[in-house]
Amino acid sequence: MIRHVALFRLRGGVDPDMVVAFVEAIRKVHVDGLRRLEVGPDLGLRDGNCDLAVVCDLDDRDAYLRFDSDQEHVRVRKELAAPIAETIERIQFEITA
Amino acid sequence: MIRHVALFRLRGGVDPDMVVAFVEAIRKVHVDGLRRLEVGPDLGLRDGNCDLAVVCDLDDRDAYLRFDSDQEHVRVRKELAAPIAETIERIQFEITA
Repeated sequence: MIRHVALFRLRGGVDPDMVVAFVEAIRKVHVDGLRRLEVGPDLGLRDGNCDLAVVCDLDDRDAYLRFDSDQEHVRVRKELAAPIAETIERIQFEITA
Repeated sequence: MIRHVALFRLRGGVDPDMVVAFVEAIRKVHVDGLRRLEVGPDLGLRDGNCDLAVVCDLDDRDAYLRFDSDQEHVRVRKELAAPIAETIERIQFEITA
């Protein structure tokens, strides 16, 4: 199984409603082979953290590539993530099922 | 449940054996309330990604704080992570159990 992680630092002064809109939209993205999608804001337990995380578990590389290129996902990235994100750090790595 | 994520960018020219030593050591860190720990290198499916991920699922905030301050974890961070990491981006966020 493949885990995809994206950690966001948000732009200063970003409208909280825009963050909510992104979170709600990314939760609805679905492709074949997407087993789990977790998204949430930093809990403030540690200084210097990122602001928002998206973590998806997918069956295999093909499922990840479908997720990456999914039309609704591309729209959400462009219209809802890009305007609020200062930086996004990503990784995809293998996890045990 | 709380998910802790750390994404590493490794220093250029880092000795692969040092990365393996870190991965093996972090896998052995255990505290009460740590339910799952996944660690692995980037799969190379996307340009610009980070190099290495650690993702831990913990019962609650207390378990996270135990993990964060655990003596062996602190040693691993200082002796094995710090020498290989150029940057580390972190977050802790709430996930469904």
